[in-house]
Amino acid sequence: MGQRTLEPPISWLMHAALSRPKLISLAAGFTDNVSLPVAEARLALNRVLRSPRTGRKALQYGITAGDPTLRQLTAEHLQKLDSQASASSSSSSSSLVLEPKSRTRMKDEDEKAYPPERLLITSGSQQLLYMTTEALCDEGDIVLVEDPTYFVYLGILQSRGLRARGVRLERDGLELAHLEGVLQSLKRRGELRRVKMLYLVSYFQNPTGTTTSFGKKRAILKLLKQFERPAGHPIYLLEDAAYRELRFAGQDVPSALTVRGAASRVIYAGTFSKPFATGARVGYGLLPEPVFTAVKHIKGNHDFGTANLLQQLSVQTLTSGIYGRQVARLQKRYAHKAHVMKQALEKHFPAGIEWWEPEGGLYFWVRLPRAISTGVKSKVFRTALKNDVLYVPGELCYADDATRRKPDHEMRISFGSASEDDIREGIRRLGRVLRKLITKG
Amino acid sequence: MGQRTLEPPISWLMHAALSRPKLISLAAGFTDNVSLPVAEARLALNRVLRSPRTGRKALQYGITAGDPTLRQLTAEHLQKLDSQASASSSSSSSSLVLEPKSRTRMKDEDEKAYPPERLLITSGSQQLLYMTTEALCDEGDIVLVEDPTYFVYLGILQSRGLRARGVRLERDGLELAHLEGVLQSLKRRGELRRVKMLYLVSYFQNPTGTTTSFGKKRAILKLLKQFERPAGHPIYLLEDAAYRELRFAGQDVPSALTVRGAASRVIYAGTFSKPFATGARVGYGLLPEPVFTAVKHIKGNHDFGTANLLQQLSVQTLTSGIYGRQVARLQKRYAHKAHVMKQALEKHFPAGIEWWEPEGGLYFWVRLPRAISTGVKSKVFRTALKNDVLYVPGELCYADDATRRKPDHEMRISFGSASEDDIREGIRRLGRVLRKLITKG
Repeated sequence: MGQRTLEPPISWLMHAALSRPKLISLAAGFTDNVSLPVAEARLALNRVLRSPRTGRKALQYGITAGDPTLRQLTAEHLQKLDSQASASSSSSSSSLVLEPKSRTRMKDEDEKAYPPERLLITSGSQQLLYMTTEALCDEGDIVLVEDPTYFVYLGILQSRGLRARGVRLERDGLELAHLEGVLQSLKRRGELRRVKMLYLVSYFQNPTGTTTSFGKKRAILKLLKQFERPAGHPIYLLEDAAYRELRFAGQDVPSALTVRGAASRVIYAGTFSKPFATGARVGYGLLPEPVFTAVKHIKGNHDFGTANLLQQLSVQTLTSGIYGRQVARLQKRYAHKAHVMKQALEKHFPAGIEWWEPEGGLYFWVRLPRAISTGVKSKVFRTALKNDVLYVPGELCYADDATRRKPDHEMRISFGSASEDDIREGIRRLGRVLRKLITKG
Repeated sequence: MGQRTLEPPISWLMHAALSRPKLISLAAGFTDNVSLPVAEARLALNRVLRSPRTGRKALQYGITAGDPTLRQLTAEHLQKLDSQASASSSSSSSSLVLEPKSRTRMKDEDEKAYPPERLLITSGSQQLLYMTTEALCDEGDIVLVEDPTYFVYLGILQSRGLRARGVRLERDGLELAHLEGVLQSLKRRGELRRVKMLYLVSYFQNPTGTTTSFGKKRAILKLLKQFERPAGHPIYLLEDAAYRELRFAGQDVPSALTVRGAASRVIYAGTFSKPFATGARVGYGLLPEPVFTAVKHIKGNHDFGTANLLQQLSVQTLTSGIYGRQVARLQKRYAHKAHVMKQALEKHFPAGIEWWEPEGGLYFWVRLPRAISTGVKSKVFRTALKNDVLYVPGELCYADDATRRKPDHEMRISFGSASEDDIREGIRRLGRVLRKLITKG
């Protein structure tokens, strides 16, 4: 049996969260429960199903790539995000940000950059990550990832017999010198031909909360391009923008799609689930050829198309403004919850523990002194669990990569699903655990 | 790029059906449009979303294996189907049917045979077929299939670098002697260790409409078991029961799960989509360990769980009786449409053309004289398309298998989505094409 797929950590974390009622989970990437748009979804579904004509369309099979109207709307939505982000970053005074192409130039290239024909609707953006990896990589291939990165994606790589190489992160994205060093080293060892892509969680990265600056996106694409000749094939950038619309501070950054001349190398993965309702899983990808066609065929084999009912729900929420209003509401909500968590961290966590304050997304990334392990078998983790509080051990987010020791002194804590009270209480419990152990150690 | 996945025939067939308004498609496996339960789905969704408590559950992530209530309901549903089928086949007078285990014996084993803990909810049963194949088979492995079989499944095998070996079909399922011959021949060539499973569309098979008798299921499992020792591992039966509830004549046959001692080798794939609404894709599988766990982990990587909104819709339709009433309505509807197609075939098709009359499902399988090709490049297919009628060429349903010539004189025609008028008109057009070409030839 080809069963090399291990238990994904997220499964038992989710299960632990759902099956232990007294546990406060700061681990699961669930979204905020009380702000789920129940009335809005009901309204939208009643509109979808209001007549046989509209309703039958939602209850019948569609085509594999997705509903044409939704693909059009999604392409426009994405174009609008990028266009607004480009405008705001152009007018920004930050001299560190390399300029995206100007608005006038962008206008000419827009039609090419966001064609609905290369837009694929998927069951959450997770499915796009999986299928893109399936399309691009053969067993034994290497995928470059942020170090640390989204642990479910590491599970995908492991289950497909792929290797990950981690590239160090700093506050505004990958360390470019390290990326170049990794590519050089792979080249020297004759392994560059196994490198098919770089996976980048570019907005409020899971787990660290880092957002990749536009300048870094451009520099990354330039670097990858330089190594294509020795690699003998394209090296793609898979940009996972799942958290992009959950920004509650600062300004949006244009996607890698807007980097001039890069459209043929960027695979953009987005989603309507996290910013609306995670129980209605609709994600999407904009992919260059020939990747689009390959992934579409794989989608045909997996499930020949995402449930039309969910797609029509998305069409309805996008066109009615329900979606936009919900995103705005969520942004406020998460801003508040992030603030609650920050205050709790400041109040309850002992000195010597650091965190990056996120501008969006669902996570704080907390760094303990290096000597203190947070791993699944560590005293911190076990004591926390005994005190009914759960976090994601940082070590789970690091690829198996023999070129460096896997850090295990970090934790991902989420303000996504926990209530304000639970955030305060969870951080209080965790702080007590840490204080004891750090004092002892 | 690992892009060996070819364009699945279903993609372009579906696309042709949706993009050419004058075309009468007897090809696509779409379901009947006018009987789609629009009002019923609206009612059920309003119930799901009637309050924050129930609604939030539907709009939030769930756990990977599926909603516990739905898994419980699904296990009971399946158990009920099998229990009723066993009762009716026990009281049947047909001496050809080997007896399933008696009702009293079944009672003792029921709890073990249908455990919700091994029930996995998927995005349509298609996803279960894909993930099971991913879990069980490594590149180069061999899957035994009916000859002909479901062409999308052949696409899955092709895309995963697997080989198919076809086993001839007769009116009540596989030719057992041929199955044994194929296994013997694989054994002689030392290839038995590459055989991981047999894929069987056991109810109203796609494309032929054949239903596998219970006696054959038992005999097949017995045969597979005999070859496990030389194979060195279990050989599983993947029973695809997607069409099972679309029976409109005759009596249901117990699933392979009811064959005594076979529970550890049977993977049962079912669906709520085809019998209710194909736009709300909810399928399921009952799998033995260790396959269940392996497939669940793969599901975690693909999409970490089927959309909760669709699952809660299924819970609501199952418990309210909406589902059962819709299935009964659909059975009547398809009985009628199958009758319309049969009458049209009798009226418009020339002599020398044969078909099996189905007792359920969506398809007629039509056999032309062997000299007449129906393939994608054939005169028949091209002329039919020119006359705005589309069918599935039989050759697409045959595996690439060097041990026999691929038949290409058959066609699959569906009464699923076409209206009664279109069925009559489509068959009339097809009949005219065939009459001309057969007379000429």
